[in-house]
Amino acid sequence: MRRSYVDLNCDMGESFGPFLLGHDELLMPHVTSVNIACGFHAGDPSVMRRTVALAKAYDVRVGAHPGYPDLAGFGRRLMGLSPDEVYDAVVYQVGALLGVARTQQVPVTHVKAHGALYNAAVVDDRLAAAIARAVKDVDPALCLVGMCGSKIITAGEEEGLCVAHEVFADRAYQANRNLVPRSERGAVHMQIERVVEQALEMVTLGYVTAITGERVPIIADTLCVHGDGRQAVDFVRAIRTALSKESIGVQPLGAC
Amino acid sequence: MRRSYVDLNCDMGESFGPFLLGHDELLMPHVTSVNIACGFHAGDPSVMRRTVALAKAYDVRVGAHPGYPDLAGFGRRLMGLSPDEVYDAVVYQVGALLGVARTQQVPVTHVKAHGALYNAAVVDDRLAAAIARAVKDVDPALCLVGMCGSKIITAGEEEGLCVAHEVFADRAYQANRNLVPRSERGAVHMQIERVVEQALEMVTLGYVTAITGERVPIIADTLCVHGDGRQAVDFVRAIRTALSKESIGVQPLGAC
Amino acid sequence: MRRSYVDLNCDMGESFGPFLLGHDELLMPHVTSVNIACGFHAGDPSVMRRTVALAKAYDVRVGAHPGYPDLAGFGRRLMGLSPDEVYDAVVYQVGALLGVARTQQVPVTHVKAHGALYNAAVVDDRLAAAIARAVKDVDPALCLVGMCGSKIITAGEEEGLCVAHEVFADRAYQANRNLVPRSERGAVHMQIERVVEQALEMVTLGYVTAITGERVPIIADTLCVHGDGRQAVDFVRAIRTALSKESIGVQPLGAC
Amino acid sequence: MRRSYVDLNCDMGESFGPFLLGHDELLMPHVTSVNIACGFHAGDPSVMRRTVALAKAYDVRVGAHPGYPDLAGFGRRLMGLSPDEVYDAVVYQVGALLGVARTQQVPVTHVKAHGALYNAAVVDDRLAAAIARAVKDVDPALCLVGMCGSKIITAGEEEGLCVAHEVFADRAYQANRNLVPRSERGAVHMQIERVVEQALEMVTLGYVTAITGERVPIIADTLCVHGDGRQAVDFVRAIRTALSKESIGVQPLGAC
Repeated sequence: MRRSYVDLNCDMGESFGPFLLGHDELLMPHVTSVNIACGFHAGDPSVMRRTVALAKAYDVRVGAHPGYPDLAGFGRRLMGLSPDEVYDAVVYQVGALLGVARTQQVPVTHVKAHGALYNAAVVDDRLAAAIARAVKDVDPALCLVGMCGSKIITAGEEEGLCVAHEVFADRAYQANRNLVPRSERGAVHMQIERVVEQALEMVTLGYVTAITGERVPIIADTLCVHGDGRQAVDFVRAIRTALSKESIGVQPLGAC
Repeated sequence: MRRSYVDLNCDMGESFGPFLLGHDELLMPHVTSVNIACGFHAGDPSVMRRTVALAKAYDVRVGAHPGYPDLAGFGRRLMGLSPDEVYDAVVYQVGALLGVARTQQVPVTHVKAHGALYNAAVVDDRLAAAIARAVKDVDPALCLVGMCGSKIITAGEEEGLCVAHEVFADRAYQANRNLVPRSERGAVHMQIERVVEQALEMVTLGYVTAITGERVPIIADTLCVHGDGRQAVDFVRAIRTALSKESIGVQPLGAC
Repeated sequence: MRRSYVDLNCDMGESFGPFLLGHDELLMPHVTSVNIACGFHAGDPSVMRRTVALAKAYDVRVGAHPGYPDLAGFGRRLMGLSPDEVYDAVVYQVGALLGVARTQQVPVTHVKAHGALYNAAVVDDRLAAAIARAVKDVDPALCLVGMCGSKIITAGEEEGLCVAHEVFADRAYQANRNLVPRSERGAVHMQIERVVEQALEMVTLGYVTAITGERVPIIADTLCVHGDGRQAVDFVRAIRTALSKESIGVQPLGAC
Repeated sequence: MRRSYVDLNCDMGESFGPFLLGHDELLMPHVTSVNIACGFHAGDPSVMRRTVALAKAYDVRVGAHPGYPDLAGFGRRLMGLSPDEVYDAVVYQVGALLGVARTQQVPVTHVKAHGALYNAAVVDDRLAAAIARAVKDVDPALCLVGMCGSKIITAGEEEGLCVAHEVFADRAYQANRNLVPRSERGAVHMQIERVVEQALEMVTLGYVTAITGERVPIIADTLCVHGDGRQAVDFVRAIRTALSKESIGVQPLGAC
């Protein structure tokens, strides 16, 4: 299934007080959607305001990026929150971003869980359902972004939400469509050609070649662009150039 | 100026995780508006959800109660936030409560700053303006509650917001309409008769008798009921009984 | 193996800022050792000072009670900290209590992990080793308290630490010497006679009768007294009376 | 009063979790003492461990750098803590660093308050006394570092502590020996020559030339080197070269 367009999303607004993280100013011109940290794993009210303003300036779609309440661990450590606690945490964080965005007349179009919460919702039915329900209860017009083919996508569909399948151009996949864990060899593609190749494969052919060689069907509604590496801008520019050569457009999330 | 009705407001949702504070269940049936802590000085996402649900069950108006980011100090310690930081903190907290309330189809009607932030906005033009602007930018239909006759009221009016003058039945006033500081003798009325007397004076006569004897004109749109004392329920019931005898109704905020 | 004495320990200092938790004043006269929260899952610097002072007044042994950095979850939610992160968190928390205790010339005699960290160290070799190493590196004279027969005891012994096997009088045991999970029926003994009976059984006979009837050998160096229930004082007084009738003394930890 | 040696101190360990701040690795070889953040305004247990290890590797003296509990504000916002609360916060933070340092057999030699707490203790008798008392109560052998000629120095002397007068080479002084506020023109020397000139003046001549021209007597026990600017390393190397030409040695704090 060749796509005619794809979204490029990036996590942003991950600074906190005096602590700067990421290259938001450099990357914002090159993406179509951003997921803004909401103060639990990163971000603070002032950073959120500035990040929404930056997205507005570049006409980039704004989404909420709720995470576990673990600033020191950047939301990357699993936490034993119950489904109800996850529901409450997502509602709170999405609401906070809605407040910030409203002061700038910017619509919030989507929600994507962060880090360990994202990963938990890939495999855990109950957490995935809690997130989907939280999103729907705050605003049923929000698009739910999640790992292609995972529980969170199913949960979103069951709530009647618009969902967006997310894929990763710089991460190796297993035959079961999971990512190869970062702890394993070959988990992250460091070569720009490899990243572009996988991006094109996913967008134009509808599959990804797993690390073990299998062709794994994939839906590439949105391509995640990492914002923390030095090569981040080079990677996203190379991807956009390659997509353009293939006459594939970039278009933001939330147009469903 | 005899009023035909008054609002009775109470700060609620001040528990945090396993830490219980206040007597929300006992007091909710007796008040008309509540100010719900938003996670910075007290409250957490789950406590917020439960408090909104409790208010909904008793048909009590829900407002946001933003404070300084100081859980250990319960928002009662002054913090040197800039006006921009205060603006951002208020937007974030009000937005978070809006998210929680929306999941229960409960409207948020008002905003009242908490503790040291409330006090700072009594006297500081720039902080008062920052709060008023934050409230307006999130939702211009929100009512801004503040100390009767203080800078926050002026700031709210300048932004075109509905404002509500708040008065205290259990606190002694100075001739300049400020409260007698808690550190001074006679600052808090401990006798229920004294509390009721001052409540009636303010609501039916439009003034309060200062600790030094002067009659100080006052606008009693809303009467603050403290929720943390043991006598809290007795006090509010006595006030309601006295108001009823005088044929003065109770009616929630945000009807402007 | 009949013991001639046993320690009675209780978690204390779990208040935080304005948030009060537990009945420290009521229980302190009845126990021989306390485990003081160190600010991560509960407690704050001022609460720690007051709790150390209270223990000193009653000549009760003071220990550190480090937990996960999760105030909202009271350290009861599992968190994915690496062994190194656990090591660092324990060192920091024990050090903080050492500082507080030193200002009052009170020795710190022991360390007991809290909540989800305690439970994790029951079964996880690497976390248990990290905790034991942290304790030893801060002060090798500290006694390490842990679930009787668990990994943390083994880890402490391997580091050459004095260890204390902890048992629970009010919790049902499984045949494998684990506690019956709280979520299951019969997990917690609510009857004071049942609690006293199990306490005596463990201390005088050296075993506990599992919920399935087996006699499970147990070492009862220290008996945990819960401080949060309403019956807490009644329970500990009843246990002390029963021990006294059996001519079994109470004696604090850390005398090794 | 020409000095024969001076200490060069730098604030370090100000990263937090994934958030990196400062250039500790680059600066450590060039200073003689470091003040390590203790988790309240910056730093976390793991960052503290790594910073102590780095200091140990370069044989640099380690001190505690306690601040207000305000991570988002980096401890630079005034907070209304009472003297007792400040006492407790300092005890806790110094104790935590003592714990971390002890695991590496590194002595802690000094304490210097951070940011808004440092500034508050320059002018506020009671806060200065609380800090001095906290330091003494934790360990009377600790050296107390503070703004030359300020209340904290007096308070330290009254407690019988070793004190170190701190001066700033890159900040303009007023005639009253206070710093020119950062908000004013000329507050910070940007030219390396100017910084070196002021450093030499203070160390070799015992005075600083105020922004208004007066010669202000000053005691330069320790020179603060800022670690966050890009030029930080250049500045400290230039200062060391200039001191060396004048045959003035560098020597750490805490040798009293």
